[in-house]
Amino acid sequence: MNSSTNQVYPVIWHNNAVSLIDQTRIPNEYTFVEISRSEDMAVAIKTMIVRGAPAIGVAAAYGIYLGATEIHTDNRDEFLNHLENVAEMLRSTRPTAVNLFWAISRMMKIAYETLGTVDEIKQVLFQTAQIINAEDLQTCQAIGDNGLKVLPSNPEKLTLLTHCNAGALATAGYGTALGVVRSAWREGRLARLFADETRPRLQGAKLTAWECVQEGIPVTVITDNMAAHCMKRGLIHAVVVGADRIAANGDTANKIGTYSLALVSKAHNIPFFVAAPLSTIDFSLSDGDQIPIEERDPAEIYQVGDTILTPSGAEFYNPAFDVTPAEFITGIITEKGTFAPGELRRLQEKQVV
Amino acid sequence: MNSSTNQVYPVIWHNNAVSLIDQTRIPNEYTFVEISRSEDMAVAIKTMIVRGAPAIGVAAAYGIYLGATEIHTDNRDEFLNHLENVAEMLRSTRPTAVNLFWAISRMMKIAYETLGTVDEIKQVLFQTAQIINAEDLQTCQAIGDNGLKVLPSNPEKLTLLTHCNAGALATAGYGTALGVVRSAWREGRLARLFADETRPRLQGAKLTAWECVQEGIPVTVITDNMAAHCMKRGLIHAVVVGADRIAANGDTANKIGTYSLALVSKAHNIPFFVAAPLSTIDFSLSDGDQIPIEERDPAEIYQVGDTILTPSGAEFYNPAFDVTPAEFITGIITEKGTFAPGELRRLQEKQVV
Repeated sequence: MNSSTNQVYPVIWHNNAVSLIDQTRIPNEYTFVEISRSEDMAVAIKTMIVRGAPAIGVAAAYGIYLGATEIHTDNRDEFLNHLENVAEMLRSTRPTAVNLFWAISRMMKIAYETLGTVDEIKQVLFQTAQIINAEDLQTCQAIGDNGLKVLPSNPEKLTLLTHCNAGALATAGYGTALGVVRSAWREGRLARLFADETRPRLQGAKLTAWECVQEGIPVTVITDNMAAHCMKRGLIHAVVVGADRIAANGDTANKIGTYSLALVSKAHNIPFFVAAPLSTIDFSLSDGDQIPIEERDPAEIYQVGDTILTPSGAEFYNPAFDVTPAEFITGIITEKGTFAPGELRRLQEKQVV
Repeated sequence: MNSSTNQVYPVIWHNNAVSLIDQTRIPNEYTFVEISRSEDMAVAIKTMIVRGAPAIGVAAAYGIYLGATEIHTDNRDEFLNHLENVAEMLRSTRPTAVNLFWAISRMMKIAYETLGTVDEIKQVLFQTAQIINAEDLQTCQAIGDNGLKVLPSNPEKLTLLTHCNAGALATAGYGTALGVVRSAWREGRLARLFADETRPRLQGAKLTAWECVQEGIPVTVITDNMAAHCMKRGLIHAVVVGADRIAANGDTANKIGTYSLALVSKAHNIPFFVAAPLSTIDFSLSDGDQIPIEERDPAEIYQVGDTILTPSGAEFYNPAFDVTPAEFITGIITEKGTFAPGELRRLQEKQVV
């Protein structure tokens, strides 16, 4: 059951277009959407056909390349001007995940730095998007293996809890938090994963559970409000979640409910790990209060499938993310090792990142 | 808007039968189910057509009376023997809420204590069920008014947060936690109620929001995992929840997610109140570890309306309640005043309860 034959890659370059797994249809249908225009990529990111901070970064990088192919000029400055518009359109899709901005910046930087013809810049942009994709996959595998080193050594078979989906679907493949889960499973250290269903969009129930079932990893889905009760009953040995943006002091923005989970983990002395590539750290923000928090459509709360849950006249508040203060985070698991939140600044000073 | 013209009574005696509001159809339909047999009352409790600890108690009391009318004998002992079977059937519907057992015990005690004919016992049983109903309504109004006295005095207009539905629908009327909310609204002390949607059965989104809309109380529905974030943002001044059973030391069983909410309230120094009639206290249990926790059908987690949320192959854990340790409870608001959890035993010694 530990086979890796069912590997999931949410963003694939194929036949001059990007194939995205349509994550709004998982687990009911495993289908792909073909994206061949930058504008369509922006819509796909906004509507969460592709979601998860690192996967959004990869998708946006390809989006920049698709935008480049749509610009029909040989004039370098004119080309770069138009490419800035593409970048701006992609940046405006979602505000919280920093990987989006990181990937777009990296693509734009290489565009400006590439001397030569417009065709040569386009070629370099394509290669860079491919590199970002490949690097993310390697990064996730490194995060998974690094996570394995910091998990509790007792008991031998752990039950881990995760929130939302920081899995293969949220990255180029393998996953960040689910990368740690996958590495633990591969090495025989995992008894079972508990997955918060993660209201309102239910990425845990839909996506994380689906990824586990694909690979035969035993998964128990609970509603978000059951985590504390499970901890009190001794069912959970450690928590691993992903991140959408980490401030320089270690404060971490992640899917709404992460903060609550960190508080209840602390109350039960259960280690709480954030697993994320170093590109998730935003050193321009000194703390998490400065991270913009996306608010989404109230319909995500009041409607599930065709069912309206609430009476007409009720109001809603739908923040998509929250910020977990560094003090509640045991360690940040990255591709270069696991660090205490307070160590991040030192990594920057030593130019590790 | 503070009118009380839209009062809600979930259990009404009417035309020799019990009219129950069908709470599985709120908020989409406001309909009643007629119950004229004790067996049907057991089904109605089990399937949560009627739910909420005090309302279950009232419904069960009428269920005992309906059962009494089904016993066709003039022999007192034979009658009481058969009535024990009715009591047993009703007791087996739901394990956690103590009000169920309390109401049944009170009905059975009066049956044994009533000397006279079977017809006279039946008459007394009917009166007792009516009294239990009327007392619960008065109790809730007293709880509401007592709660008002212990709410924070600043700001003048409070935003309260509640979990699940401890409202008129959960009682004979007026509600326990929502009784406090109603009293605050009546006295101009309430700005707004935040209602946890309360997965898996969504009683907050469906029932609490509906009750508020009926009375024009401004209500904001959030998913359960947003409460901590709202508290961090300063949006919540106090939390009020109901209770299904309170142990002698103050440990409180209530709807799953209450424990989590208590932990995050403590982390933000926000007062956390339990509002419940004294009949919710089970002095036979020294602490909350002894309270039986009902586990319900996994379908409550994996299905909403016609929509299946999870992939085939996922597993589930569905505890319907959790236990909040006394240390996280600021005060228990009852019809005789508000008490610290540690004071309950003294109340018993002083024969207040």
